[in-house]
Amino acid sequence: MAALLSVGLTTAMAQTVSPTPELYSQRTLDDLVQIQKAATAGTHAYDLARYMSATIGPRISGSNEAAFAVKYVAEEMRKLGLDVKLQKVMVPHWVRGVETAELTEWHGMPPGATRNVVVTALGHSVATPASGVTAEVVLVNDFADLDRLGRKNIEGKIVLFNYKFDMEMQAAGFGLAAYGQSVAYRTNGASAAAKYGAVAAIVRSAGGSQSRLAHTGLMRYQDGIPKIPSGAVTYEDAETIAYLAALGPVKLHLTLTPQTLPDVESYNVIADLKGSEKPNEYVIVSGHLDSWDLAQGAIDDAAGVAAAYSVPAILKDLKLRPKRTIRFIAWMDEEQGGTGSRAYYAEEKGNIANHFAAIEADLGSSHPIGFKFSGKPELQRYFGPLLTVLRPQGATLAQYQAGGVGSDIGPLTQDGVPSFAPFFNEETYFKYHHNAADTFDKIDRREIGEVSGVVAVLAYGLANLEQPLPR
Amino acid sequence: MAALLSVGLTTAMAQTVSPTPELYSQRTLDDLVQIQKAATAGTHAYDLARYMSATIGPRISGSNEAAFAVKYVAEEMRKLGLDVKLQKVMVPHWVRGVETAELTEWHGMPPGATRNVVVTALGHSVATPASGVTAEVVLVNDFADLDRLGRKNIEGKIVLFNYKFDMEMQAAGFGLAAYGQSVAYRTNGASAAAKYGAVAAIVRSAGGSQSRLAHTGLMRYQDGIPKIPSGAVTYEDAETIAYLAALGPVKLHLTLTPQTLPDVESYNVIADLKGSEKPNEYVIVSGHLDSWDLAQGAIDDAAGVAAAYSVPAILKDLKLRPKRTIRFIAWMDEEQGGTGSRAYYAEEKGNIANHFAAIEADLGSSHPIGFKFSGKPELQRYFGPLLTVLRPQGATLAQYQAGGVGSDIGPLTQDGVPSFAPFFNEETYFKYHHNAADTFDKIDRREIGEVSGVVAVLAYGLANLEQPLPR
Repeated sequence: MAALLSVGLTTAMAQTVSPTPELYSQRTLDDLVQIQKAATAGTHAYDLARYMSATIGPRISGSNEAAFAVKYVAEEMRKLGLDVKLQKVMVPHWVRGVETAELTEWHGMPPGATRNVVVTALGHSVATPASGVTAEVVLVNDFADLDRLGRKNIEGKIVLFNYKFDMEMQAAGFGLAAYGQSVAYRTNGASAAAKYGAVAAIVRSAGGSQSRLAHTGLMRYQDGIPKIPSGAVTYEDAETIAYLAALGPVKLHLTLTPQTLPDVESYNVIADLKGSEKPNEYVIVSGHLDSWDLAQGAIDDAAGVAAAYSVPAILKDLKLRPKRTIRFIAWMDEEQGGTGSRAYYAEEKGNIANHFAAIEADLGSSHPIGFKFSGKPELQRYFGPLLTVLRPQGATLAQYQAGGVGSDIGPLTQDGVPSFAPFFNEETYFKYHHNAADTFDKIDRREIGEVSGVVAVLAYGLANLEQPLPR
Repeated sequence: MAALLSVGLTTAMAQTVSPTPELYSQRTLDDLVQIQKAATAGTHAYDLARYMSATIGPRISGSNEAAFAVKYVAEEMRKLGLDVKLQKVMVPHWVRGVETAELTEWHGMPPGATRNVVVTALGHSVATPASGVTAEVVLVNDFADLDRLGRKNIEGKIVLFNYKFDMEMQAAGFGLAAYGQSVAYRTNGASAAAKYGAVAAIVRSAGGSQSRLAHTGLMRYQDGIPKIPSGAVTYEDAETIAYLAALGPVKLHLTLTPQTLPDVESYNVIADLKGSEKPNEYVIVSGHLDSWDLAQGAIDDAAGVAAAYSVPAILKDLKLRPKRTIRFIAWMDEEQGGTGSRAYYAEEKGNIANHFAAIEADLGSSHPIGFKFSGKPELQRYFGPLLTVLRPQGATLAQYQAGGVGSDIGPLTQDGVPSFAPFFNEETYFKYHHNAADTFDKIDRREIGEVSGVVAVLAYGLANLEQPLPR
């Protein structure tokens, strides 16, 4: 209900608050109208997102493709005339290997049969022996279940965390909340199972696909507990194993051969479009440059980098210069620990007061219905004129969200920087997130233009705001 | 428009034609109401479909699983007290091997990169060398394109048939029509390309998935033309290759190692529930027992076999016996040439006059909106009372379809046997058809109960019809 109320208020503001000189100059408001039109009519964001996805391809931390993408994006920013800085980050270099699994025993199996199971290794998992590991599968629905079963039922077995991604929550548009519930098993399942002597841990995919796609993503080992291999199986395979396990013992042969190589030097790409009046105050526009490796990292997060890139590109086309500096950042290594985000914060933590606002786009590129913000709730009253400018593209909501709106800008948010992200219905994002179908065709030309519109209007508006923001 | 008119008429009939003793006795109509209730409330169809899919698994012609399923289904029919006959069929035995592909060269590629391409071998394809074949990809949109390019552009290359499955037609509910348009490339693409000296042929998947799933299915070699390996790539990979090929040459390394083994003896499972008055007249209820091998053959076609199985199971529960014989058939080898269908017809062709009607369910198990029929259009006037019985489950349309309603019963249809199939919206079926996501979770318990209702009401109604059908 609180959320609904806030939506109602925001909509009312968009309709009734007229532009006031106290917030934005008339010149700024006129410019914003041009920016919004250029963003939604143009293809800067679409073109870069497609190039990063389809031409460069997956950009997992430490890869050739990630290194190539750093150079490519830096060069694109230089072409726009921006000052480019490569900020050094040491990133993990985890490389996927063979990943296969099959059931070798179940109740009612045809003689001599095995059954293919679609599995993917989780990021940072150790390997099984090259010939795999075979063990009985123990199903648990959650951590409490695991504790109830204890060592006597777990030791020597493969644990399947069968926690169900909430498909109805996703269908209602709240995929991120569903993801938030299930991702704990992906992240912490292996150590939880290893504590009781499991030989491997597999999780039901922490995503909303029902098309036999396994969802990868980061896992973490807890100190002092044996590291066991960990993968994700698809929705379908989890359902099948659960059905069969209810009839009798199920044995799985699991082979995962990823490798962890030495850390690699990589970079955040930072590019400043200098402000005309307050060059030392920054409005960040950003997305993350690295991705997972199963597909092309299109919606996660070429789309976000591309929306951020579109801001200086559009301003160049329109020959506009913001009053504050607009700082583009393509974050490195969001997916495998956020080393890029931490490196930036470490370098800037004495300079946070000059970070006027931070924007991150990392939830895909479907039609944005407005934006979310974190910081002081009273920020709300600064947005009416921006929402009026965004009305033609149907982005009319400013939604307060406690706790942050993006992981890379998280340290800035925590330190008081007003933070922003496009606001999406999340019904489709988690069907492709971290799986093999995150490819450039999932980005719609019109929709990413709208994301570009939200990011550009927010960025230029905030960069030209006539007042400080409460923080 | 013709279709709409017919729908309108049918609906009117369902509302206004009252049961008449000339078509169905009052006793039969009362029984049909009980049958419809039992079908939609019960789980006979769901339970068998799940067992065939999840416990037995994929049932590709010639496999252990197919042989096991023949025994299993035959035994289930014996448990119902039916006379079971195993009708011998020699079936192909094609076995999938390694199937991998990657792009090795494209414009703008990061140095040293390769790009994974999701591919699956088409049924009956020959193999590449074990180390694969590498060649430039030539895109064609259709056969006319191929002919235009000719030998000078095709020789030594890998042809990608990029004919697009019509997603809008699918979204409108007409997936089968979209499939009908694109399947020609899967079936005939390899020989068409080989004629011009191609070294391999790949097709864009002839299905409606947008989740990186490759669609397998039968292909055929034309006599006198070299046999080249043939596979299907996903929607996403076809889109990516098309995008990259517009920028410059694209090279693909393709490895497919399927094998064709000697034919295997297998069986149609035929089981008769003898009629009380006309035991030598048959109403067939059927689905096909074999499947493709990438998933579990759940919607294609455990669901159809299970709906057919539910008819005698429900009649046994209700202690009902039909006037004509209801003949259950689980067809073997629908997917790889229809040898089962042809064997049945060869044996029965002198006895076609006694085949009163034939029903086949082979388009999944979503909510049926009625049934389709082939034969004389004037059959329409016999269905009003059946549609009235089916009204509570929302199956109210009898839709005439020229040319047949199912491939296994096709020879019977051609020879004049009135033929029937459940009538579905086909918006989802081709998202899973012949790919890795055709698993038992795609079958909804309520919906397959409704399929069972349509098949059972049709079968018992026709078996008890007081008049002959026009043919």
